[in-house]
Amino acid sequence: MTATSAPTETSHAAALDAADPLRSFRDRFVIDDPDVVYLDGNSLGRLPRATLDRLAEVTRGEWGGELIRGWEHWLTYPLEVGARLAPLIGADADEVTLADSTTVNVYRLAIAALDARPGRTVIVTDRPNFPTDRYLLEGIAAARQLTIRWLEPDPVEGPTAADVAAALADDVALVTLSHVNYRSAAIADLPAITTLAHDAGALVLWDLSHSGGSVPVGLREHAVDLAAGCTYKYLNGGPGAPAYVYVRRELQAQLRQPIWGWFGQRDQFAMGQGYDPEPDIRRYLVGTPGILALAAADVGIALSAEAGIDAIRAKGIALTEYAIALHDAWLAPLGCFVGSPRDSARRGAHVAVRHPEAKRLTRELIARKVIPDFRAPDSIRLGLSPLTTSFGDVHRGIAAIRELLGGA
Amino acid sequence: MTATSAPTETSHAAALDAADPLRSFRDRFVIDDPDVVYLDGNSLGRLPRATLDRLAEVTRGEWGGELIRGWEHWLTYPLEVGARLAPLIGADADEVTLADSTTVNVYRLAIAALDARPGRTVIVTDRPNFPTDRYLLEGIAAARQLTIRWLEPDPVEGPTAADVAAALADDVALVTLSHVNYRSAAIADLPAITTLAHDAGALVLWDLSHSGGSVPVGLREHAVDLAAGCTYKYLNGGPGAPAYVYVRRELQAQLRQPIWGWFGQRDQFAMGQGYDPEPDIRRYLVGTPGILALAAADVGIALSAEAGIDAIRAKGIALTEYAIALHDAWLAPLGCFVGSPRDSARRGAHVAVRHPEAKRLTRELIARKVIPDFRAPDSIRLGLSPLTTSFGDVHRGIAAIRELLGGA
Repeated sequence: MTATSAPTETSHAAALDAADPLRSFRDRFVIDDPDVVYLDGNSLGRLPRATLDRLAEVTRGEWGGELIRGWEHWLTYPLEVGARLAPLIGADADEVTLADSTTVNVYRLAIAALDARPGRTVIVTDRPNFPTDRYLLEGIAAARQLTIRWLEPDPVEGPTAADVAAALADDVALVTLSHVNYRSAAIADLPAITTLAHDAGALVLWDLSHSGGSVPVGLREHAVDLAAGCTYKYLNGGPGAPAYVYVRRELQAQLRQPIWGWFGQRDQFAMGQGYDPEPDIRRYLVGTPGILALAAADVGIALSAEAGIDAIRAKGIALTEYAIALHDAWLAPLGCFVGSPRDSARRGAHVAVRHPEAKRLTRELIARKVIPDFRAPDSIRLGLSPLTTSFGDVHRGIAAIRELLGGA
Repeated sequence: MTATSAPTETSHAAALDAADPLRSFRDRFVIDDPDVVYLDGNSLGRLPRATLDRLAEVTRGEWGGELIRGWEHWLTYPLEVGARLAPLIGADADEVTLADSTTVNVYRLAIAALDARPGRTVIVTDRPNFPTDRYLLEGIAAARQLTIRWLEPDPVEGPTAADVAAALADDVALVTLSHVNYRSAAIADLPAITTLAHDAGALVLWDLSHSGGSVPVGLREHAVDLAAGCTYKYLNGGPGAPAYVYVRRELQAQLRQPIWGWFGQRDQFAMGQGYDPEPDIRRYLVGTPGILALAAADVGIALSAEAGIDAIRAKGIALTEYAIALHDAWLAPLGCFVGSPRDSARRGAHVAVRHPEAKRLTRELIARKVIPDFRAPDSIRLGLSPLTTSFGDVHRGIAAIRELLGGA
């Protein structure tokens, strides 16, 4: 970065953009209205230009032209896209598949883990975890008469290894957390927590929805057992794009997920009696995969894979550091404070700006074509998607908040 | 039908096509190669022409242009498409939603039913049921230590009301069957079986994958409790298109499906603590719905709704009657027999032609651009999709089988 001006000057943002090694990726996305400052790529990533052609190809060419014969290659398509995604999360190619939704995947991986730890009656998770994870764990706990041991960490800093250590005992079957918190962007200490859980005899299941494609995960390096995540945020797969499942290779044949669908069946088209699942990652497939949605997810994932997770992470840190510098210069004096960790090593690719009027401010920002997300009770969440967000976007977005607060 | 020629004459097929009130629908689908005789619309329905435009609109216009703001209308899109599908299966608009895959839906509806019948330990289904239904019920039975009481009906005629009656007792929690059998096309006696199950205090769950969009179901009329099905067959929704869920209105607030996801939560975006599900069909939503796939399914469903289930059914009967007439004239003397009910009132929109060499024959038919499906052990399955299959297709398809068997 060669910029020497003050961060609040427009020229500073322009210099950062000029020096950005990923800047050319932005041109590979549809940007309809250059006046829109899109700071919600962590709710819904932008549309890659190549998605339109790929969708036309899979629809017109494959579905329309090949008809049922398309299944000759579609059958393995979820695995192929999983293999493309794998390096982004530090998994091997045969440890990941696309499938279903994050909710369904966390549900079935959690049950697979619980079944592998009979006699243990406790699930550990945290109160600030994403709602769908909390709700589905409540459902599982109710159905199986288990207890959830709720961590109550600092909502900004998220659960620490010490928080988890204090909750662990020989009654814990499963520790399941989000790698990056959806509200504060706190990165949980995945290596330490995974090791602690293993030392206590528990399995771990990480929700990667807010880290997949934005923060390195190192699933294999850290011997993570299970993970799931969505592809519609940083991976730019489209609204409600198919989710993914990771199962550590050594566990694949050992565990059994609870929804015994025909796509997990060995010799599927024999359609024989008796469920006899595949021994590998295919065992974690359930029903017929949606091929059109998979094709769209494929394009987004391929773009992130092309950029590489290290370059993405470096830019994510630079964007959030810049947002915090602007916040401190402009917004802190106006009653805002940062609801995300200040240590960039502990922060994903978004920044929560907290203000008592966050809800109203978000609405007014959207009316001015600055699009963040509101997260109750008081966060304006600025999602800084490394492939599509420019430093100029950050500057304009935070300038708009300043203006709304009467600070300009 | 004004045709007076012998069914085996080409002119007969042409006359039937000329008199077909649904003939114009075929032009609303992509037909790349007019030489292809596609007889597998019950595995994967053809691509509607309008799907391409709708996909471009939802992708380029909505995702690309509206970005996160698209969720203002996407949130209710699964319900809107469900409402469009409802009349095709005899449900009310507020009783159906699109969601997940058929496998996931049958799983969660089955568990909802079992939870509503505590103390009862038996699930009734049949051995010829579709594999994914059988496997997932095995998984549920294993997890909950329940028994499956397997019906062993005639594989062509399928389970009768008498078969079900013989299996019912006060230990039965759930009767779950396919409305139309995937291999033989036998239509189960849904009204009688539903009544029998209710009289025994059990709930019923019908898999409509092979009847939805081809055979009237009358869910409300017959007080069916639960149903699920796919949209990629007769509903022409695309490969792996999202499935649907029906829950009788009176049961919606009473039952609870087991995957407690955030799309079922009341006031979802409050993201509060504690799962508190909606009281209506929204309670049967789980994770974030895939909007691109939903848009494609919408187009296919709307086409079927426009044609109307009664006209579709009439043509389905005419097509299968014609196929059987040609079979009897041409194929029966060559060692084939019909593996579907001969009574059209008991037969869906496909015909199984059985022959010991069915697997080889299917392969050779495909090489000649006649595309049926093989179903083990010995069925060439001719799927006659009322909106896209012509009587000419049936004539050419069966003529090709005859030729392969040396009969021409």
